[in-house]
Amino acid sequence: MARAIIKAAIVGGTGYTGVELIRLLAAHGGVDLRMVTSREQASRGVGEVFQNLRGRVDLQFTEPDPDALCDCDVVFFATPHGTAMGLVPTLIAAGVRVIDLSADFRLRDPDLWQRWYGRPHACPELLDEAVYGLPELNRAAVRNARLVANPGCYPTAVQLGFLPLLETDVVDPERLVADAKSGMSGAGRKAAIGMLYGEAADSLTAYGVDGHRHLPEISQGLAAIAGRAVKLTFVPHLTPMIRGLHATLYGVLYRGDVDLQRIFEERFSDEPFVDVMPTGSHPETRGVRGGNTCRIAVHRPQQGDTAVVLSVIDNLVKGAAGQAVQNMNIMFGFEEIAGLYDISLLP
Amino acid sequence: MARAIIKAAIVGGTGYTGVELIRLLAAHGGVDLRMVTSREQASRGVGEVFQNLRGRVDLQFTEPDPDALCDCDVVFFATPHGTAMGLVPTLIAAGVRVIDLSADFRLRDPDLWQRWYGRPHACPELLDEAVYGLPELNRAAVRNARLVANPGCYPTAVQLGFLPLLETDVVDPERLVADAKSGMSGAGRKAAIGMLYGEAADSLTAYGVDGHRHLPEISQGLAAIAGRAVKLTFVPHLTPMIRGLHATLYGVLYRGDVDLQRIFEERFSDEPFVDVMPTGSHPETRGVRGGNTCRIAVHRPQQGDTAVVLSVIDNLVKGAAGQAVQNMNIMFGFEEIAGLYDISLLP
Amino acid sequence: MARAIIKAAIVGGTGYTGVELIRLLAAHGGVDLRMVTSREQASRGVGEVFQNLRGRVDLQFTEPDPDALCDCDVVFFATPHGTAMGLVPTLIAAGVRVIDLSADFRLRDPDLWQRWYGRPHACPELLDEAVYGLPELNRAAVRNARLVANPGCYPTAVQLGFLPLLETDVVDPERLVADAKSGMSGAGRKAAIGMLYGEAADSLTAYGVDGHRHLPEISQGLAAIAGRAVKLTFVPHLTPMIRGLHATLYGVLYRGDVDLQRIFEERFSDEPFVDVMPTGSHPETRGVRGGNTCRIAVHRPQQGDTAVVLSVIDNLVKGAAGQAVQNMNIMFGFEEIAGLYDISLLP
Amino acid sequence: MARAIIKAAIVGGTGYTGVELIRLLAAHGGVDLRMVTSREQASRGVGEVFQNLRGRVDLQFTEPDPDALCDCDVVFFATPHGTAMGLVPTLIAAGVRVIDLSADFRLRDPDLWQRWYGRPHACPELLDEAVYGLPELNRAAVRNARLVANPGCYPTAVQLGFLPLLETDVVDPERLVADAKSGMSGAGRKAAIGMLYGEAADSLTAYGVDGHRHLPEISQGLAAIAGRAVKLTFVPHLTPMIRGLHATLYGVLYRGDVDLQRIFEERFSDEPFVDVMPTGSHPETRGVRGGNTCRIAVHRPQQGDTAVVLSVIDNLVKGAAGQAVQNMNIMFGFEEIAGLYDISLLP
Repeated sequence: MARAIIKAAIVGGTGYTGVELIRLLAAHGGVDLRMVTSREQASRGVGEVFQNLRGRVDLQFTEPDPDALCDCDVVFFATPHGTAMGLVPTLIAAGVRVIDLSADFRLRDPDLWQRWYGRPHACPELLDEAVYGLPELNRAAVRNARLVANPGCYPTAVQLGFLPLLETDVVDPERLVADAKSGMSGAGRKAAIGMLYGEAADSLTAYGVDGHRHLPEISQGLAAIAGRAVKLTFVPHLTPMIRGLHATLYGVLYRGDVDLQRIFEERFSDEPFVDVMPTGSHPETRGVRGGNTCRIAVHRPQQGDTAVVLSVIDNLVKGAAGQAVQNMNIMFGFEEIAGLYDISLLP
Repeated sequence: MARAIIKAAIVGGTGYTGVELIRLLAAHGGVDLRMVTSREQASRGVGEVFQNLRGRVDLQFTEPDPDALCDCDVVFFATPHGTAMGLVPTLIAAGVRVIDLSADFRLRDPDLWQRWYGRPHACPELLDEAVYGLPELNRAAVRNARLVANPGCYPTAVQLGFLPLLETDVVDPERLVADAKSGMSGAGRKAAIGMLYGEAADSLTAYGVDGHRHLPEISQGLAAIAGRAVKLTFVPHLTPMIRGLHATLYGVLYRGDVDLQRIFEERFSDEPFVDVMPTGSHPETRGVRGGNTCRIAVHRPQQGDTAVVLSVIDNLVKGAAGQAVQNMNIMFGFEEIAGLYDISLLP
Repeated sequence: MARAIIKAAIVGGTGYTGVELIRLLAAHGGVDLRMVTSREQASRGVGEVFQNLRGRVDLQFTEPDPDALCDCDVVFFATPHGTAMGLVPTLIAAGVRVIDLSADFRLRDPDLWQRWYGRPHACPELLDEAVYGLPELNRAAVRNARLVANPGCYPTAVQLGFLPLLETDVVDPERLVADAKSGMSGAGRKAAIGMLYGEAADSLTAYGVDGHRHLPEISQGLAAIAGRAVKLTFVPHLTPMIRGLHATLYGVLYRGDVDLQRIFEERFSDEPFVDVMPTGSHPETRGVRGGNTCRIAVHRPQQGDTAVVLSVIDNLVKGAAGQAVQNMNIMFGFEEIAGLYDISLLP
Repeated sequence: MARAIIKAAIVGGTGYTGVELIRLLAAHGGVDLRMVTSREQASRGVGEVFQNLRGRVDLQFTEPDPDALCDCDVVFFATPHGTAMGLVPTLIAAGVRVIDLSADFRLRDPDLWQRWYGRPHACPELLDEAVYGLPELNRAAVRNARLVANPGCYPTAVQLGFLPLLETDVVDPERLVADAKSGMSGAGRKAAIGMLYGEAADSLTAYGVDGHRHLPEISQGLAAIAGRAVKLTFVPHLTPMIRGLHATLYGVLYRGDVDLQRIFEERFSDEPFVDVMPTGSHPETRGVRGGNTCRIAVHRPQQGDTAVVLSVIDNLVKGAAGQAVQNMNIMFGFEEIAGLYDISLLP
């Protein structure tokens, strides 16, 4: 089915999710990327800032201009938390559909948002309308959404990994552990001592053990899946790699006679971007580098009562920009895999 | 112009150039990749060995079978040196066109080959016919070649960088220095202590200073360009990165009134895969990661008599598999950029 | 108290634990390192194989010679599993004290050993006598040991992290999870495709989820601490760093009114090589690089019922060679910190 | 000869050279490190900022206090360029000896300094007195210096590598090329986008090709060695490693009958921190990680007219803090190797 070309813009294009969105949209046959905003890089060519775009994307960064944005079919926000919520009401009112890669619309409860993000939400009335853009869970709602809250990277890998276990009610939702390891690009492209090569290379550290902002997002999602409150212990780690996120998930099985492999294979059999590996496998993060796949393996060590799920994504693709494009594809009637089917780069 | 689908095979598909060739050919609309051989992995699925190919390439490695290979339009050799020359005569005789990514047909002089590779050449009569597949230099000859010797990674970056300087006769061909830095994938995918993560990470070392096999290949090429013998000092270095090759080239200028920038821009203005950066630039290897571009900047520090050329490629793409596909495109009448125009992955 | 110089030898000195042992013993004022054996590197200088030892250690690798070994006060085995058990009886009989860094004497049950290591144990009669060399647990027994089984790297970090929780009986020993991340040197210095820089860099993967050889070793140790059988889910991961091991441990608390911080501080207050960080901290693996410290932080996220312990070591030092020297110090009456007090290298 | 303990302070202790100085001085038996200043970290413990110092160095960062500094025997400056020159005159006047690791006193010509550092020098009258602290060149002058200008990292590796060739007048000083590769810690510990892990990992780039601040420093030094002006082309590169600097040096030989190996061995035979490798060798940067050694190999490829010198250092040790301690040892009559003889960490 032929589709008209849609007009798209990116607000905040100089971060890692921004450059990744540019890469994906530039190669997407159905999109006319008209504008990428950046206050600090305004008037510089995108190919000047990001050498991979030289000769491929003929755009300059521009100051954000609400009128110009309102002329688009879709606007992506790849901004720090707190920016999108200032502009989104205007865009929505103008009939523009919005995909927000920041956290502004991920939590349904404005009080919870305020607790974790340290300020009142600017448009709490939109929180109910916003669709949480995890297609494997909310595909139908995404289709007609005016506003999609694109999931965080950890929440994507963790929710997809626990999804089949909670939907089939085989693990205790009050005993969930998610031990997650992220590459450094997950922390964003901002000048910070802790993110320097000299600090982060050849080292590994947990962080935010007492409370990471993705915890309420994950808990909200898992509770919706389980149909009841969950208790999750979530420990993220920074690891010395550029891209890649590996979530190792632990669930306590209610009983021993479950065919975990089959539960996972059946749940995801129609999903273009979830790949369940054969029994006994171990997914590598590099196997999804640059691709939109979430690759999963499920184990039951020593045939005990603990299910172990290994779930890997590229944090910038399925964990951010790729999932945003997947949502766009669903919203605008493109093939869901359009622009997202490059083979991952290995090695 | 519509083209029939051509039948292709890869001999030796378990190395890094092999998996990269599979990735590129699988995404090339004009190619039916029918066979990838590997003695040691025969009967295993390619997606089992390389997770990035899971679900995308439905092939198993097979034992090499000359009859089956003879049924192809083109056969790629991604084998260790010395293997291709045993099979190529048979394939050529059967009308199959061959692109050899190993060094078997890169040197014109069989004695020189024997000196550097330690054994007699198996089919010296083909050395004259083989076309050295650097399209920027030999595009016309590649078009009709039965046998293409695909250049090495160092030779590609070094020759493209020196090319405009030697063609315009502005530097002394007897005073060339090429200081080159390669990522570890350039050393191949073979079990060797020196290539271990624990050996190669967080360290840098020169190697082969007294003679690397790419030296005669580069010298032969530069001499052909200069129209006279050259003297080149070539020092390769192993650097702790996966992909990427940075050649830093030094040439002594005959005179000061040359517009180096213009010489480079003019020479490569029609080349789809050579990108000359603006004056004062420094190309990053990551800017070409996964792409077929050679990105070049030329400097004349302190306006002295030395030209410094910075030339970067992805050693597995423009330095191996991508260039092979570019050659195939030329040989079979595809658009030269077919299958090679993905935007590089950054970060 | 002045001590005589003791005579030492290393059997198997070309692996990573071997070179680390040489480094530590060469700098230890009380040791005369007389011999480092290696069949494959025999007669090469140690400084030729390992450039860091050039000019500092004037030894050549030699063929193993039982007579010469029997003339030593202490012999270290840094060999692959299965080698030490062939020689140890002879050495012990000759009055030599042995510190075995391999797994040969770590398990008390010969049947268990055979199950995990795939062959019968060669001298099961010594398994009972062997002292498991975790000084924080077994210091007194180490002092008089003839044979010390030096713990594995994962077992060291995991046992030290769980130790205070199990000794004080505050967590359920049937609900233990250990999610551990190791640098690549933990896999040894052997030519294997999976350990190549090009395979392991910029990627992360779990392995051995269905059963890693360190599992029975850890379980045996934790059971001894707890005084009853334990159930442990242990998932090791390979991470792209050279050295460093981060164990993230999860225990279910029996009750909420425990002062975890105080339990850890009190347990380790006299330990020279265990550093308990202040509440809310996150240890970095680089903070112990090259040092013999195990650095620990304990958390109780959201004041829930799960204790999270972060335990980091340098896998080659406290996880191997450093702990071996610590054991030697105890056995021979040196100060326990002798030769082990270099400040870690950061960055 | 027994020595009194000297009182030392570090101004600017939160950068990479700062933390390395703390590490080395803390382990130096003859030094009482009394003070480490940092405006931004004032009152935080050094072990809180740098985990490797936890439990080993019981100091807090303090605001710089000139009176307290004047009470020291020696003050080290590990500050950004332009800071030391404001304080040094006061310290010198008070009889304190100063070792400046910044560039403030490295150039003899104040106009040249102003040209490269963009502001007038604050105390040009001290430039003549300052001793350039390359012990292998200026040991005698260092001994009695009140003010030592500690060399930069690139200048150390490049000058030591060219030294024997220029002193013996075997290469043309007007045809020198230095191609240098540095680890990321060489760029300092400051929040800058380009230094992020996500930017610098798995990539390599030249920088400052048209003029790096170390160029005039190196040229000044080489000219003094050669006894005449030199022409040097200097191209530095950023490489994805933490520590390590590899200088690859090219010199055109006047004649072919020189024994390069002997020239190097004789020149450095008495130097405790320069290690000349055997003919045909390739030094690895990791072989000097954490150590104060400059390791050198000299080659003459294809017996041509070009000498190639490979010179490696740890940029933070021999290229900064270690050399500063070496200078201190010379100035205060310690053994030159005191506190500097740890064996490098490999892997």
